[in-house]
Amino acid sequence: MADETHGKREGATRRGRAGSGGGRGGSGTRGLRGNAVIGQSGGPTAVINQSLVGVIEALRAIGGVKKIYGMRHGVSGMRQGDVVDLGRLRPDALKRLAATPSAALGSSRDKPDPEYCRAILERCRELDIRSFFYIGGNDSSDTCRIVCELAHAEGYEMRCIHVPKTVDNDLMESDHTPGYPSAARFVATAFMADNLDNRALPGVKINVVMGRNAGFLTAAAALARRREDDGPHLIYLPEVPFNTRRFLVDVENVYRRLGRCQVAVSEGVQDDEGRPIAATLLAGADVDAHGNVQLSGTGVLGDALADLVKKNITNAAGKPVRVRADTFGYLQRCWPDASRVDAREARAAGRYAVRLAAAGRMSGSVAIVRTSNRPYRSAMKAVELADVAAKTRRMPPEFIDGMNDVTPAFLRYAAPLVGDLPETAVL
Amino acid sequence: MADETHGKREGATRRGRAGSGGGRGGSGTRGLRGNAVIGQSGGPTAVINQSLVGVIEALRAIGGVKKIYGMRHGVSGMRQGDVVDLGRLRPDALKRLAATPSAALGSSRDKPDPEYCRAILERCRELDIRSFFYIGGNDSSDTCRIVCELAHAEGYEMRCIHVPKTVDNDLMESDHTPGYPSAARFVATAFMADNLDNRALPGVKINVVMGRNAGFLTAAAALARRREDDGPHLIYLPEVPFNTRRFLVDVENVYRRLGRCQVAVSEGVQDDEGRPIAATLLAGADVDAHGNVQLSGTGVLGDALADLVKKNITNAAGKPVRVRADTFGYLQRCWPDASRVDAREARAAGRYAVRLAAAGRMSGSVAIVRTSNRPYRSAMKAVELADVAAKTRRMPPEFIDGMNDVTPAFLRYAAPLVGDLPETAVL
Repeated sequence: MADETHGKREGATRRGRAGSGGGRGGSGTRGLRGNAVIGQSGGPTAVINQSLVGVIEALRAIGGVKKIYGMRHGVSGMRQGDVVDLGRLRPDALKRLAATPSAALGSSRDKPDPEYCRAILERCRELDIRSFFYIGGNDSSDTCRIVCELAHAEGYEMRCIHVPKTVDNDLMESDHTPGYPSAARFVATAFMADNLDNRALPGVKINVVMGRNAGFLTAAAALARRREDDGPHLIYLPEVPFNTRRFLVDVENVYRRLGRCQVAVSEGVQDDEGRPIAATLLAGADVDAHGNVQLSGTGVLGDALADLVKKNITNAAGKPVRVRADTFGYLQRCWPDASRVDAREARAAGRYAVRLAAAGRMSGSVAIVRTSNRPYRSAMKAVELADVAAKTRRMPPEFIDGMNDVTPAFLRYAAPLVGDLPETAVL
Repeated sequence: MADETHGKREGATRRGRAGSGGGRGGSGTRGLRGNAVIGQSGGPTAVINQSLVGVIEALRAIGGVKKIYGMRHGVSGMRQGDVVDLGRLRPDALKRLAATPSAALGSSRDKPDPEYCRAILERCRELDIRSFFYIGGNDSSDTCRIVCELAHAEGYEMRCIHVPKTVDNDLMESDHTPGYPSAARFVATAFMADNLDNRALPGVKINVVMGRNAGFLTAAAALARRREDDGPHLIYLPEVPFNTRRFLVDVENVYRRLGRCQVAVSEGVQDDEGRPIAATLLAGADVDAHGNVQLSGTGVLGDALADLVKKNITNAAGKPVRVRADTFGYLQRCWPDASRVDAREARAAGRYAVRLAAAGRMSGSVAIVRTSNRPYRSAMKAVELADVAAKTRRMPPEFIDGMNDVTPAFLRYAAPLVGDLPETAVL
């Protein structure tokens, strides 16, 4: 079922049958009744509010629902009945909200246990919630699944639909995930600009990119390349075991050839045995000053790699090479320059989730299918919660080139999602 | 002398007398002869190529100069006669170049000694350079001054004009410096977006901003505020002594009140005795792993402050608060979304430098004068190299509010430079 297509033009959608009640998602009566609630979960993105607005719009368009609530900080607020009434938002307010990055309802990183889920269900009963929409990543889809199963077991009729979101792009069943194209756009733009900076003041520059288990976001750095000698010259993904000795050889080779080297490294790079490099490099060092090895919101991996280079690679004059590290951090997921494709698809995913519920589907998630690459077109399809929940997709082998690069296939995959980058010139 | 005004519209310039040869800058004959060379120096900015193109355009328009050379990597290339011919660039190529961030000619951090400067002058003689334009910060203006004095002492007629550039905004005599408005725009946009992220997943968020001695760039974070409870909630400038104990009290107070706290801290914050906090915090810690305490291109200050918070502030449940640190790094100076005012003024500064030389001025620098704040208008004026060279301007007291904020006067000063930020909405 791939029945909402998205062409190049905004709003160029063709409406068809949605979630006609078949499949393991279970089947209820068509149409909606009672009240609906929407939550946002996990790390925010530049377009998660597009999905929120998409759900609200579609609920209003389809009708049948009396009240539309928003959970304050996801399940964390839902458990306490902390909801807001979203029914009064006027179209111009919705438009501004959709264009605003980060999760307007507030988000949560809670992973509910069965008791926590029972409290959620209790609040849902009290509020007569019959449609439960949860926008988030694979953990959030698992929460959605547990709540749904609990409702089913207790004979409470409530449709639970998950709306995908993650900058990591690691959800199963989807060509890509809303949130990823915009974060990838930030990363590609950043590498492009930083490459020009590194041309002007040459040296080794290491940029650490988000992505604990999947390298899609780090790989997007490759979209920055315009000229043969443009960075990133080396790309290290969590899917490829990271070896510090090989890393130093790689950097030295590029530095000898070009007099500079721009490196993209995923925060989640791991050694042969699956241990995060950030932890390994700090094992004998100042772990206290950095607490437990957290990957985002710290510059520790970049600093440790820069230190390695400084100690091991010298320039032509026999002095340590100039080396700097930047960790792009949270700007990757909130920068207010969303990819157009992403904004459109995130909105469509929200709308599609409502159509699945309205078509009688008791549970499920939404996935994006790419129907054409040039010109780029996509469609939404329904998938089972169990096929998405708590699972992680990683970069497929055909996107990975050896130990330190991505393939042209990856570039063909990512380019239309990210959109055009600013033009630049060199002398 | 403030005789090139810049109104709101692009190119709305009124041409008048420029650098009519008076003042300590010395006086030569009017008009230009021989060849010209242009260099770019120090940390790149988003608009330093605007100034480069401004110089080229004006040299062509005024005429008299035979060849226009560009130094490869500033004085470092000039010393070796490594120059490129800029005379063949066509208008469309210049337009693309002007819009490209970072220094297209390559930059340099060399601080030439007298012997180095003699080599530069020797190459200038060989190339019959009679006009020497150097785009950079206060160190670069000092280089310009030394080369100029050497030429004068040796009786070699060469006009040496410095074109201002620095994201730090720390040049004397100027209302502000080309490069600063664009970097400030990045910082304000980043704080605005990150504030929304921090609203969604509350905690303490520390963002480290460039600026070793001057707090202008860190202060620009305050432009991100839209609502009463928006961050940044605390702003720490290098002009105000930083005390870790007071910092913890400040953070805890905001956190108790709002349940979150977004902090802007300059990489250059110092203790009462002028020692960088980054060095102090690491004094007893793992200095080896971070080499000598460099301020940019490392996450060490942010990580150390985050660690302080983690160890000293607990949430309502008695657990350490959620705390993250991001160091904005080099993206601040190369992000390809220049402020419009900045792009226009950087171009105008380059053009004005040529007009100073053509008017017979033997040496000097260009400064920006604000002629009106609402609507914003500025003009260029000539200043003496000695008044700019190797001097540092810091945030004036009227821009600093107590220990951890900026004043409305600063906001009125910075807002027109940065321009409009994306609109956002909250529920």
